[in-house]
Amino acid sequence: MSQEVRIERDSLGEIPVPKMAYYGIATERAKRNFNISGVSADKKMIYALVIVKKAAALANHEVGSLSLKKCRFIEQACDEILAGKFDDEFVTDSIQGGAGTSFNMNVNEVIANRANELAGFALGSYSLVHPNDDVNMGQSTNDVVPTAAKLALIWKAEVLGLAMNRMIAVLLDLAEEFDDVIKLGRTHLQDAVPIRLGQVFAAFASVHMRELNHLEFALSDMHVLNMGATAVGTGITASRRYIELVTGYINELSGIYFLPASNLVDATRHTDYYTRLSASLKNCAVSLSKMCNDLRLMASGPRGGLAEIILPPVQPGSSIMPGKVNPVIPEVVNQVCFSVIGNDVTVSKAVEAGQLELNVFAPVIVKTLLESISLLTQAIDTLTEKALTGLQSNRENCSLITEHSAGVATALIPYIGYDRASSIAKESLARRVSVREILLEEHLFDEVQLDEILNVYHMTEIR
Amino acid sequence: MSQEVRIERDSLGEIPVPKMAYYGIATERAKRNFNISGVSADKKMIYALVIVKKAAALANHEVGSLSLKKCRFIEQACDEILAGKFDDEFVTDSIQGGAGTSFNMNVNEVIANRANELAGFALGSYSLVHPNDDVNMGQSTNDVVPTAAKLALIWKAEVLGLAMNRMIAVLLDLAEEFDDVIKLGRTHLQDAVPIRLGQVFAAFASVHMRELNHLEFALSDMHVLNMGATAVGTGITASRRYIELVTGYINELSGIYFLPASNLVDATRHTDYYTRLSASLKNCAVSLSKMCNDLRLMASGPRGGLAEIILPPVQPGSSIMPGKVNPVIPEVVNQVCFSVIGNDVTVSKAVEAGQLELNVFAPVIVKTLLESISLLTQAIDTLTEKALTGLQSNRENCSLITEHSAGVATALIPYIGYDRASSIAKESLARRVSVREILLEEHLFDEVQLDEILNVYHMTEIR
Amino acid sequence: MSQEVRIERDSLGEIPVPKMAYYGIATERAKRNFNISGVSADKKMIYALVIVKKAAALANHEVGSLSLKKCRFIEQACDEILAGKFDDEFVTDSIQGGAGTSFNMNVNEVIANRANELAGFALGSYSLVHPNDDVNMGQSTNDVVPTAAKLALIWKAEVLGLAMNRMIAVLLDLAEEFDDVIKLGRTHLQDAVPIRLGQVFAAFASVHMRELNHLEFALSDMHVLNMGATAVGTGITASRRYIELVTGYINELSGIYFLPASNLVDATRHTDYYTRLSASLKNCAVSLSKMCNDLRLMASGPRGGLAEIILPPVQPGSSIMPGKVNPVIPEVVNQVCFSVIGNDVTVSKAVEAGQLELNVFAPVIVKTLLESISLLTQAIDTLTEKALTGLQSNRENCSLITEHSAGVATALIPYIGYDRASSIAKESLARRVSVREILLEEHLFDEVQLDEILNVYHMTEIR
Amino acid sequence: MSQEVRIERDSLGEIPVPKMAYYGIATERAKRNFNISGVSADKKMIYALVIVKKAAALANHEVGSLSLKKCRFIEQACDEILAGKFDDEFVTDSIQGGAGTSFNMNVNEVIANRANELAGFALGSYSLVHPNDDVNMGQSTNDVVPTAAKLALIWKAEVLGLAMNRMIAVLLDLAEEFDDVIKLGRTHLQDAVPIRLGQVFAAFASVHMRELNHLEFALSDMHVLNMGATAVGTGITASRRYIELVTGYINELSGIYFLPASNLVDATRHTDYYTRLSASLKNCAVSLSKMCNDLRLMASGPRGGLAEIILPPVQPGSSIMPGKVNPVIPEVVNQVCFSVIGNDVTVSKAVEAGQLELNVFAPVIVKTLLESISLLTQAIDTLTEKALTGLQSNRENCSLITEHSAGVATALIPYIGYDRASSIAKESLARRVSVREILLEEHLFDEVQLDEILNVYHMTEIR
Repeated sequence: MSQEVRIERDSLGEIPVPKMAYYGIATERAKRNFNISGVSADKKMIYALVIVKKAAALANHEVGSLSLKKCRFIEQACDEILAGKFDDEFVTDSIQGGAGTSFNMNVNEVIANRANELAGFALGSYSLVHPNDDVNMGQSTNDVVPTAAKLALIWKAEVLGLAMNRMIAVLLDLAEEFDDVIKLGRTHLQDAVPIRLGQVFAAFASVHMRELNHLEFALSDMHVLNMGATAVGTGITASRRYIELVTGYINELSGIYFLPASNLVDATRHTDYYTRLSASLKNCAVSLSKMCNDLRLMASGPRGGLAEIILPPVQPGSSIMPGKVNPVIPEVVNQVCFSVIGNDVTVSKAVEAGQLELNVFAPVIVKTLLESISLLTQAIDTLTEKALTGLQSNRENCSLITEHSAGVATALIPYIGYDRASSIAKESLARRVSVREILLEEHLFDEVQLDEILNVYHMTEIR
Repeated sequence: MSQEVRIERDSLGEIPVPKMAYYGIATERAKRNFNISGVSADKKMIYALVIVKKAAALANHEVGSLSLKKCRFIEQACDEILAGKFDDEFVTDSIQGGAGTSFNMNVNEVIANRANELAGFALGSYSLVHPNDDVNMGQSTNDVVPTAAKLALIWKAEVLGLAMNRMIAVLLDLAEEFDDVIKLGRTHLQDAVPIRLGQVFAAFASVHMRELNHLEFALSDMHVLNMGATAVGTGITASRRYIELVTGYINELSGIYFLPASNLVDATRHTDYYTRLSASLKNCAVSLSKMCNDLRLMASGPRGGLAEIILPPVQPGSSIMPGKVNPVIPEVVNQVCFSVIGNDVTVSKAVEAGQLELNVFAPVIVKTLLESISLLTQAIDTLTEKALTGLQSNRENCSLITEHSAGVATALIPYIGYDRASSIAKESLARRVSVREILLEEHLFDEVQLDEILNVYHMTEIR
Repeated sequence: MSQEVRIERDSLGEIPVPKMAYYGIATERAKRNFNISGVSADKKMIYALVIVKKAAALANHEVGSLSLKKCRFIEQACDEILAGKFDDEFVTDSIQGGAGTSFNMNVNEVIANRANELAGFALGSYSLVHPNDDVNMGQSTNDVVPTAAKLALIWKAEVLGLAMNRMIAVLLDLAEEFDDVIKLGRTHLQDAVPIRLGQVFAAFASVHMRELNHLEFALSDMHVLNMGATAVGTGITASRRYIELVTGYINELSGIYFLPASNLVDATRHTDYYTRLSASLKNCAVSLSKMCNDLRLMASGPRGGLAEIILPPVQPGSSIMPGKVNPVIPEVVNQVCFSVIGNDVTVSKAVEAGQLELNVFAPVIVKTLLESISLLTQAIDTLTEKALTGLQSNRENCSLITEHSAGVATALIPYIGYDRASSIAKESLARRVSVREILLEEHLFDEVQLDEILNVYHMTEIR
Repeated sequence: MSQEVRIERDSLGEIPVPKMAYYGIATERAKRNFNISGVSADKKMIYALVIVKKAAALANHEVGSLSLKKCRFIEQACDEILAGKFDDEFVTDSIQGGAGTSFNMNVNEVIANRANELAGFALGSYSLVHPNDDVNMGQSTNDVVPTAAKLALIWKAEVLGLAMNRMIAVLLDLAEEFDDVIKLGRTHLQDAVPIRLGQVFAAFASVHMRELNHLEFALSDMHVLNMGATAVGTGITASRRYIELVTGYINELSGIYFLPASNLVDATRHTDYYTRLSASLKNCAVSLSKMCNDLRLMASGPRGGLAEIILPPVQPGSSIMPGKVNPVIPEVVNQVCFSVIGNDVTVSKAVEAGQLELNVFAPVIVKTLLESISLLTQAIDTLTEKALTGLQSNRENCSLITEHSAGVATALIPYIGYDRASSIAKESLARRVSVREILLEEHLFDEVQLDEILNVYHMTEIR
């Protein structure tokens, strides 16, 4: 199927570009060079870079480097892209060599071609607005791509934060709802002492609050931009005035508060902020996975497991075992966590591999981080809505097991010492007689004393 | 936009399903439950499971459990799916809870509905062919999903193997082409002794041959199927005769040779074959990344680097630095390797987390493995075509640097000992005078002797 | 070699213990059970737990549970241990099952036996002071081991922080020293635009400052204790008054400020603080490894490399290549970083694997974290003293390469545009003629203009 | 405390060495340079390198490069070291820069000094035997250290293999012992269909057999040596005859069969064999950890858990909860597995970081691998002896739970279909009435039929 083409040229020669494409030769080369993941950049990443381009045009105009005419057409082109009119024109693979140069040029070219078109010139003519000289003016892939990445990551991390907060709220509701459900605590998966189910859910809420707090701190470094750094942080082709202006415009256009980096060489050469964000996401995933493991353990059964909670049934569990309902929601969350944990190794590896003045592995880093954030957000929302909302306690079974366990013998230590309490516990298990009964048999305490000493609710509270 | 629906019901109640959907209620529930990655199963995985379903129908018919009529309609439905007619009907998220039950039911339902339609019944009627009782007859998610995964992974790994072989062939060509290019070897990134560029490329070929060899060994366990294991490996609802037949039909339909597992409980409970495949892919990625690091180092420059090789220029390197050409192809391969290395952590984590009779995390494992294989395949083909083919040596520069280095002093050890050779090497570096000149100055050897002793080509060969 | 023994007994029966051992039966059992790493707990961990025990005794006495007599003997025993008199008595393997119960009992037993001995009783008699009832009074492994771990980790992390600060100070000195050394910046390992060596070292200092800042934030959660949580956080056998007192005593004895956790169930069940500390250490290692990679690249040569810096020679580089000096110090630091990066996977895995009311994998977590901190501290001090102190620039070579590169062509963009600058850069490389000469040939600028436009120092500064 | 010293010198100058030390200046420098882990090389690694040195001396003598006199003294020195007489002289840190040069020189120096001493010369005199010229003759760190590593790793891996075999044997015994113990299988931690405990243990045995098989394949590449490669694989200073002889002598002295590499450049530059061994150890750890997870789940209880098996009690479980016995042995094995899994990331990272002609990170790689092997060996032996030997089934409880579960409804599918079986299973759970009773109530089958259909033993066997 022959497609109409136009010919564009660059320092490596001429090649055909689809005639009606808004992208140009650099993008076309990238399409040919990078057929790797089959997936192009996240839309948030595209829009973030377009905002950066618009801000740069405004700043360049204000410092007198870009004519009003060019600036207006660039602005309009950017606005149209942000309105979703050119989504299909961003075609470079999300995993690409060149530190994102192809992605940057893709954006430069679409803006330039649309600006020229708005000015009445043909696609590919670059008669008025040039992708490098005008759209990329005073910029380098090495400052605009990290800047766009920070913007996109902050946007998506905010959504994750909201999802975490919703989950925390539901966990706190459950904590309240189950505050009087006594269950048997387990350590080493072995029967231990009584605890309240509400305490368990309050603890779940707490750990996610801490993770969220640390995630936000990890994001703090994302608010520092290296715009104006250009190639290696020395700001070649950029000016101090431009740097201040462009950061201001990015703030204005994005509604997020950024600061220019005090050391642009550092901010260009180092990508430690990615490692820390990735580590924070991984930390969240570790805590989230642990909670899902616990939910699945507590929901195990119905006959041959702990059977302490009942997850809302969302689908029949088995294609072969009738009546089975499985904890599919926590299971899917676990899987997302495993992905995020692996992704952290990828990001750490890629950051460590940066050499000299630039980390050229930004594409895989940004892609992986955006993916981790998306997965976690979706997983947490799914968990909140499909598994936590409507989760029920199996109060009766919790109570039954607590009473039959020997774990209550711990409460005897202040009265009869560790060694004595141990033999009573052993006897209870061996004879399958309750601790209370043995104590009565041995006339160690009377009924009234035992009501006090073996009160399981009291055992769950510090007094 | 209201869509016409039909009502289906299962043990959890009734819900609407799009009227014209070939999938049914189980799939509809999964769509609602799992909105995680936004990506459904790899097409190879879908087709593999359809082959398994067809084989099961044939086996069930042959053992007398499935009528000829049902079998024929199921067969025809499978063939149509394999011909690509229903690709859009497989809509469950690739990351899902339930060990792949939703994916299995999606396939069961599409086959059943199409079979019923072929038999003249309405979608959703299940009048003749039932998704569970007929399409899933004698099967469980726990045997058919691993079986389909093995088939899909073998298919894709074969393509990867071919890509590796093509790369190896080009590396061997380069080894021959550069056999007489003397360059300076470096250890610790410090000048060492002479080596031939051809030797370097021959070594690259060797390491990938070894990795391929081990990858193939890791795949060997994938040829053992647990078909007939059903839920936990005890084969409940299946028969010995069926097991033999179904494996035979899978072989026939796929053209790949599989064996039934001798221990079906083991083959159902354990997913060690995934860990080993993942580890092998990771090992390949480690060797591949190391080679790309070396290519980028050897291509560094052109003035301020090693400048030993010239990678084919595939795109202008920079949006700001004129004339720059970057090693974008090895860079993109490095990034793929980082992903594969991280993916191995994900897979190991997921396999380790399997509990008791089943590893329920198969979906993320299979998705991650298929992704690693695809990425590696694309990356290797890209490297072979865009960076290795056409790679040139910078013979002149290689030679110049070798001659000016002090590394040749090592060849003096058998003649004058380590300590004496050391001081000559140090003097050469300090005075910026060649080792040869110093030896002549000191009348240690005459010109003829030095031609022999300091012959750099001889230094690169064991004699 | 027969050793004299005494017989001790517990709920599992009688076994012999070395007659003169200060530890008892629980420790003896652990010796037999855990012969894993061959290494016992870090001394800091032992002393931290002894401080906890002393604090608990003081608190128990104050609330009236422990007699003054017992308390005084326990105190004295603790002080003697802290003075290093019983280091050899702590013999349980650092990797042990039971969440550290054996380690806790080892400490309980040594304190009890020494206290009894001070009171005039025989080892093993437990006549006055009982390891469980008295020394472990109101405590559980599940609160004292995490508390001791936090104390030990804070102690060691403080030392790491000091090492990082010393390194940062030396990096800042080098930044100043090399502020006027112009070198060629590289992106993608390819010649880019000029930069100053001092800027590079200032950037190194900055990244480590950020890492240190985040490490300290990760440590913040370590200052929250779960003392009084006992088995599962419900505080069974402990009192509110005791909890406040014991935390106060720990602060007093350790000089570190701790707070009691507001939610003891959370603080016992969750070990997210370990994951975050580990992640922070990993993040530090990633940045540190990247710097060492850069140091080795910049020191490469002397003839066939970048040769921009000279690391202080600390040992002859090769057993065979005379005169070779290798960057052995950065190399050893890289290796430590690889260990710390791997250790983070171990810790994350172990934290995620915690189940229900307790993470029983504390021993390997604490061991791994202490090891990571020690290794990083030693590596950083080694780097500071042996590689950064005395590091020299190769000013002449840096200058030479900058001038011969085509990277300066970037500075032409504002004057002649990207496309034109590109062809000049290409011509410069192809003809091996400087950019300046070509510009003069083409009469694009005169000498005076070029002195301004091509001033490399100016290229390294934003104006 | 002043120690008597002697002065030695090398190309960097003079430094004092302890007067009576058998090591020399290179070792002394390394002691000062590398104070990192505080642990010196594994003894197996030291002895392996000494065997290599002895073999080299014999080969060098045979090719006429080393006099009989020197050879004999070197041999005797080596034999004395191998007899354990100089263990304390190997003092360089196991994590060191320089690719192991310091370790190699440490061995060279101890051999040389002892050889000279045997010949009647003073320590430090090097009058007859020189550490570099004689002991290191025809060698480089870059061939002898990998060679010694391979030998040491094979030695230790053999011991691991034996431990795995012992574990497998005990698992097979348990499989037989528990062959008739019917228990409830669980998938998704939810009640599934019946299985026999013996089948579970047979499956455990199988997975470890496979892991062992793959571990052995990973070791196969370790039998290929690069002796004679010297610095970069070109064999500078070595001869073809020497290479053949030295490999033969290593085989003779070690009793292990090695082959010389066909491509010495490849064998020196690439360390893929380490990655693969590490990955195999990690794979073993994943399977081992999964089994220990299952053992802990099956042993959970005694009242509030699955309570299917009873692990031999090896120590009281708690310092506070009387009568508690914890699964401390599987727990310690899990922790070892977590370490090995993390170690694989370290090794992969270090191998990937190798540059150009040499991977300089061999020290941390070898240390980490030896540690992983030791830990796994100790853990597996501990598990076999302390947890598997003597493990008991809780036959009564297993049976009780199986009978009360609804999982048996799966066996009804061939008779009444999936949908009908589902509602019976649901009814059974809701009414807490057995599946059998409901079937009888509904007159679907008579008693005789149900004895056949619901025979749980039959459900565990394919027929």
